[in-house]
Amino acid sequence: MAVYTHLSDADLDALLGEYNLGEATSCKGIAEGVENSNFALTTTAGRFILTIFEKRVNEDELPFFMGVMARLAQRSFPAPRPMPTRNGALFTRAAGKAAAIVTFLDGVWPRTPGIAHSAAVGEALARMHLALEGFELTRANALSVDGWERLIAPRLAQAEFLRPGLAHAIEHDVAQTRASWPRALPRGPIHADLFPDNALFLGEQLSGVIDFYFACTDFLAYDLAICLNAWCFERGCVFDVARGAAMIAAYETVRPLSSLERDALPVLARGAALRFFATRLADWGDTPAGALVKPKDPLEYADKLAFHRQAKGAADYGG
Amino acid sequence: MAVYTHLSDADLDALLGEYNLGEATSCKGIAEGVENSNFALTTTAGRFILTIFEKRVNEDELPFFMGVMARLAQRSFPAPRPMPTRNGALFTRAAGKAAAIVTFLDGVWPRTPGIAHSAAVGEALARMHLALEGFELTRANALSVDGWERLIAPRLAQAEFLRPGLAHAIEHDVAQTRASWPRALPRGPIHADLFPDNALFLGEQLSGVIDFYFACTDFLAYDLAICLNAWCFERGCVFDVARGAAMIAAYETVRPLSSLERDALPVLARGAALRFFATRLADWGDTPAGALVKPKDPLEYADKLAFHRQAKGAADYGG
Repeated sequence: MAVYTHLSDADLDALLGEYNLGEATSCKGIAEGVENSNFALTTTAGRFILTIFEKRVNEDELPFFMGVMARLAQRSFPAPRPMPTRNGALFTRAAGKAAAIVTFLDGVWPRTPGIAHSAAVGEALARMHLALEGFELTRANALSVDGWERLIAPRLAQAEFLRPGLAHAIEHDVAQTRASWPRALPRGPIHADLFPDNALFLGEQLSGVIDFYFACTDFLAYDLAICLNAWCFERGCVFDVARGAAMIAAYETVRPLSSLERDALPVLARGAALRFFATRLADWGDTPAGALVKPKDPLEYADKLAFHRQAKGAADYGG
Repeated sequence: MAVYTHLSDADLDALLGEYNLGEATSCKGIAEGVENSNFALTTTAGRFILTIFEKRVNEDELPFFMGVMARLAQRSFPAPRPMPTRNGALFTRAAGKAAAIVTFLDGVWPRTPGIAHSAAVGEALARMHLALEGFELTRANALSVDGWERLIAPRLAQAEFLRPGLAHAIEHDVAQTRASWPRALPRGPIHADLFPDNALFLGEQLSGVIDFYFACTDFLAYDLAICLNAWCFERGCVFDVARGAAMIAAYETVRPLSSLERDALPVLARGAALRFFATRLADWGDTPAGALVKPKDPLEYADKLAFHRQAKGAADYGG
């Protein structure tokens, strides 16, 4: 929740000068998104989101992110459509940083997701995977097994401080997940961060999927495992099998899982929980005491890991 | 820059159920405004700003604030128009707090205000004062002579710490301003906080005046003195007489100043600077070290006070 970059009148004029989007009639910083600065931008041509990319985004990766969104919008998937500059570029620079303008999508993200939302997300995820088949660019997932081990290993003492006994349990999770991580599941571009605040709804209809800035190339079923973690736990720790079943069934109406993918669901879900535990643990430690922005609690994912540790098969997730 | 209140789906549905504004198609927290939580709300009926009132706003004062806005919108002044609930109320409650929905105004606030902006603001201020003539409600200005003295007196040591010699200079400002504060200038509802971030422009045309939550009943010329402080200093400390002259002249094309008002401009401007120095000093001291939201620098207003201290008459301001 922040806007890190302030745009001067001259910055905005210069930026819009590169586009065929008319003149700005409104530009307000949005208090959502923790990675980049986002502005609700209205011009004489319509409503857009202007994103200024901050430190965590590597400019070399923008062609992948913007390309994924452009492909999805072109295939009528409700992702933001990057607006091209007059030169046809899908991103440019503003105020000395990389910047992009995409279409504004209607919808409100669900604060209390239920079964209908899980089903809608499962179906959308599968449609997204199919729409991205054959996409030409790739981006390695920096937050897979090696990545989360790199984040967790130096912070085990901190994990132990958060909850006695946690360091050992997490070390065990990392080792077991690494040993049983799948090698040959169907791969392609995945969203990798499809949490409720990245899914817009009008009523129970999914109207948009946003924030593709963690997208990468990985197992398609891993994307589903992330969504099971993000959408199907009650009070952060109790897995709701009904929501899981709705999500998996809806996914499979569009793209049936292979038996290998289905068998891998428990380890993929455990890995996904480790991935979010890892970044939350790192953010938790890096935030100065007394800061006004409270980082997300890593223990939520420690609780989820406890569930995944004992899961025996896809059936435990409703699959 | 913050959103303090998070609205659940149920909160938003319940709130919109009280209005004839259709259904929400989008609702995003805005990273502007430091007092209340603001959301850019789009419904099937149009674009609005939803405000959730936080601690500094006393609910008893909402009829004054909303009444001022309603009167201005009714008189075609570009202020946000409060949307009435089905019961005709101009505010209600959401998530346990007072809440109001007003029309969304197009425009971008000027990051680098110049002469044209000063003139537009001067003219708009006078139009606002005339449009509010005969307004039936009143609200005392809690941040006038007594108010700022109450904030400054216990923090003189802090002021001295910020800049050696400042405590004595400020005590002198407070005493002199109190002694020469006018008693009988024309009064009425004033905005009292018309800084650049509360004025929206489309090009050099003023398209909206927003944030009436410091509005109160006080000298009309004091409102102009606040704007001279807010719009006409270069780099925070050098008064730009050209901008002051443009603002005062534009104000007078709509509402000429009396000779008493003109003569009072230096003390009113000095008082206005004390008022903002006082709240910035208080916010500065109350912010925990390491907090991510940096309070505004009180020394900017100490510098402005140095200018006002030596001003001899309206001519020093371009009047």
